[in-house]
Amino acid sequence: MNAIVITIGDEILMGQILDTNSRYIAGRLTEIGVEVTEMLSVPDRREEIYNTVDYAMGEADLIIVTGGLGPTKDDVTKKVLAEYFGMRLTLHEQAMRWLEELLQHRNLPMNEANRTQAYLPEGCRVLRNEKGTAPGMWFEKGWKSLISLPGVPFEMEHLMDKCVIPELKAKHPGLLLEYRMLKVYDVPESQLAEHLSAWESSLQEGLKLAYLPSPGLVRLRVTAKGEAVKHLDEAYESLKAVLAGMKYTEGDDAIEKQLGELLKKQGATVATAESCTGGEIAHLITSVPGSSAYFKGTVVAYHNEVKERVLGVDAEVLEREGAVSDPVVLQMAEGVRRLMGTDYAVATSGVAGPDGGTPEKPVGTVWIGVATPTGSYARRFGFSFTRERNIAKAAAKAIEMVMEAVREAPRQ
Amino acid sequence: MNAIVITIGDEILMGQILDTNSRYIAGRLTEIGVEVTEMLSVPDRREEIYNTVDYAMGEADLIIVTGGLGPTKDDVTKKVLAEYFGMRLTLHEQAMRWLEELLQHRNLPMNEANRTQAYLPEGCRVLRNEKGTAPGMWFEKGWKSLISLPGVPFEMEHLMDKCVIPELKAKHPGLLLEYRMLKVYDVPESQLAEHLSAWESSLQEGLKLAYLPSPGLVRLRVTAKGEAVKHLDEAYESLKAVLAGMKYTEGDDAIEKQLGELLKKQGATVATAESCTGGEIAHLITSVPGSSAYFKGTVVAYHNEVKERVLGVDAEVLEREGAVSDPVVLQMAEGVRRLMGTDYAVATSGVAGPDGGTPEKPVGTVWIGVATPTGSYARRFGFSFTRERNIAKAAAKAIEMVMEAVREAPRQ
Repeated sequence: MNAIVITIGDEILMGQILDTNSRYIAGRLTEIGVEVTEMLSVPDRREEIYNTVDYAMGEADLIIVTGGLGPTKDDVTKKVLAEYFGMRLTLHEQAMRWLEELLQHRNLPMNEANRTQAYLPEGCRVLRNEKGTAPGMWFEKGWKSLISLPGVPFEMEHLMDKCVIPELKAKHPGLLLEYRMLKVYDVPESQLAEHLSAWESSLQEGLKLAYLPSPGLVRLRVTAKGEAVKHLDEAYESLKAVLAGMKYTEGDDAIEKQLGELLKKQGATVATAESCTGGEIAHLITSVPGSSAYFKGTVVAYHNEVKERVLGVDAEVLEREGAVSDPVVLQMAEGVRRLMGTDYAVATSGVAGPDGGTPEKPVGTVWIGVATPTGSYARRFGFSFTRERNIAKAAAKAIEMVMEAVREAPRQ
Repeated sequence: MNAIVITIGDEILMGQILDTNSRYIAGRLTEIGVEVTEMLSVPDRREEIYNTVDYAMGEADLIIVTGGLGPTKDDVTKKVLAEYFGMRLTLHEQAMRWLEELLQHRNLPMNEANRTQAYLPEGCRVLRNEKGTAPGMWFEKGWKSLISLPGVPFEMEHLMDKCVIPELKAKHPGLLLEYRMLKVYDVPESQLAEHLSAWESSLQEGLKLAYLPSPGLVRLRVTAKGEAVKHLDEAYESLKAVLAGMKYTEGDDAIEKQLGELLKKQGATVATAESCTGGEIAHLITSVPGSSAYFKGTVVAYHNEVKERVLGVDAEVLEREGAVSDPVVLQMAEGVRRLMGTDYAVATSGVAGPDGGTPEKPVGTVWIGVATPTGSYARRFGFSFTRERNIAKAAAKAIEMVMEAVREAPRQ
C-alpha cells in the first residue's frame, strides 16, 4: 500500500513557513507499513489542487491532504475536493454542533466565516476535530482513500493519531515494513560506504541500507519489506559485526534522550553553564519527558559579570585569558557543578558569530568543559557555520562529551 | 518565471528527516521574484527521479533539485540527470582538484567513493562546493534550467547564496514580486477574516491577501505581482487603517528580534529565570546576533533546591504554594533580576507534561512573571498541548510579556 502526501498553501511555496506536517504524516504512515512514495506542495489555487489530487488518485492507494481548510478566502481545498468527488456542500448538522461546542468552550462568538466550516461535501465521512474549527474529511473511491486534514500542525496530529492511524491499522492488518537504525560517529560517509560496500552488496532481496549523514555522524538505516522482514534482525546483527571497532550507538534516539537514560541508570545528576550556546543545551535536555529526575538546572552566563558573580569564575583569569578559553570554561563547569550540587556539569564558551571573531579565535571557536566527580577537562572545537548552526553543533557536542564522561564513569 | 523544487531522499519520505531545504530555496527564489509553483519529494529511485524531472521540465522554467549526490550507493540523482540530459559521466579535472583541496584541508584521504564524485555529466556547468565533496550542476535545455544541489543544508545554502541567486538575478533583471507582512495578535482568524472581508474584495488585480494563522496570532501577507507592485504600499497603508484598534506589529520579524530592538533602543538589559521552559527563552533571545548587548544571562532552575539556593526563592513559600504558583514565579523573576543586575527579567514555572499534572494544576498550566524597574506582576496560562508545544508556547508568551513591559516603560 502506498501513499502520497499533499500540502496546500501559498505560504509554504513562498518559503514563509516550514512544512512540518508532511514529515509527521510520513513518519506515522511508515510506522504502520504504508510506503510514502511522494510528497507534493501546491498553492491555494483551484486548478493546481484539482490536478494534483487527480494525479495522486491515479498513483496512490491513499492520499493525505493538509491545509486549505481555514475559514478565510484563500482556503479553497474543501470546494475543490467536493467538486472532484462530485459532491455538494451541505450543512452537516453534527459538525455544526461540534463547532458550537468548541466556540462556546473558547468563549468565542459564531460568525459567518466559522459557519461555513460546517458545510461539508455530502457523502464524505466527517472526522471530529477536537482542537480546532475545521473537521477532517475522509473520501473513498473504489479501494482508494483521500483524507483531508487541517493544516495547523497540532490539529492535524490530533486527527492522525486519533482517527487516521487507528482506522488504517484496523482496515489493513497485513501491512509490513520494518527497519533498524544505528548511528556511527566520527567516520566520514564516503569512508563508511567503502567499508560497508561488500556487506551492502550481499544484502538479499527486500533489504536495503541507507546513509543519513549529518555533521559528525552518519545514521544507518536497514529497511526490510514484506517477506524480508524475517531476515532483518540477522542483517542488523551482521552489520554490527562489520562495524566492530567503530564508535556507534544503536537505535535512533536523540542524544539528549540517550544521556537521560545513562544518567537515570547511574542515579546521577547534571547541570549546565552556557555562554555561547545560550540555553540550548538545557533546552535539549529538558525536552525529554522526565528529565527533572536528573537535570537540576543551568546558568546561562552571557555576560562576564554573570560568569564571575554567579559561577565564581576568577576575574583575573577572565581578563588574562578571555572568556573563550580553556581555564574559563573549566571554572564555569566546576562552578555550576558546585552551585547546583550535581554529579556532572558541562560548560560552553565560544564565538557563535556572525561578529566577535578574531584571528586567534575566529567565529565558530568553542571551548567545552566537563566537570565530573573525578576531575574536569576541556576541548576546543572549530565550527565554521552560521550562528544558528554553530550554536546547535556546540550544544550537540556538549551533550556528547558529558555522555562520554557518564559512560566511562566507574560503576558505583 | 516559475520554479519547481524537488527534494530526493527515502529518509524524507519515511518521515525520518524534516525537509528544510525546500523552504530555504523557495524563500530565496520568492525574494528575487521567482514564483515557486510546486514542491515535490521523491525517493532515491531511478524511475521516480526520471519521471519527476521530466514532469517538472514540462511545467516550470526553473527546476532546483536537492539531495541524492552523496558518495554512497543509495544516491542516484547524478546518474539519472546524466541520462535525462543525454550526457556521459566523465572525469571533471577541475572538480577533482577542488575535491583534492577540500580533502587535504580536512586531513582526509581520497577514496573510491569520493573519487566518483568528480565524475560529472559532460556538458553541464559545474558549481564549486566549498563546503562539501558534491559539486552543484547546472543543466540548460532551451530557455529552461535545472540546477542540482547537494542535500546537506549548509552546502545547499552556500551554493544557493554564492552561485544560484546571483546568476539568476543577473540573467533575469525584470523579475518582480513583492510583499508586506504584519502580525495581528489575539484575534481569531475567522473574526479577522470577517473584519477584512470588504477590504479584501476591493483589492485590485495583482494584489492578494493571505492569512497565516499560528496560535495566538495571525500573520497577514499582502503580495503584489508585476504591474501591481506599484500599488502595494497604498494597499498596505489602507490595510493598517482597517486594522486600527487591533493589536498588531508590522513586518515579519520574530518576537525575539523585536524584543532585542526595543531593548537596544532603551539601552536596557534582560535576564530570565526558567523552570518549565528549560532554557528555551534564553535560546530564543540568544539566537539573535548581537543579543549580548542586552541579554545578561539565565538561571534554569529545574529543581526547587536551585530556585532557593541560586534565585533566593523562599523555601516556605515554595512548600506552601508549590513551584507552579504566582508568588514563586514572582520571586524567581525578582531573584534573577537582582542576581544578574538587569532592568527587566522574566520567569516561568509550569507543568510541561506529559506527567506531573494535578486537577488544580493540569498539564499546560504555566505561571509567567515579569520584573521591571517599577514593579513586577505575573499571569497564569493554561496551554494544553504536547510537552514540546507547551514549552514553545510558554517561551513565546514570556517574550511577549517582557516586550509589552519594555514597550510600556516610561521613556528615560
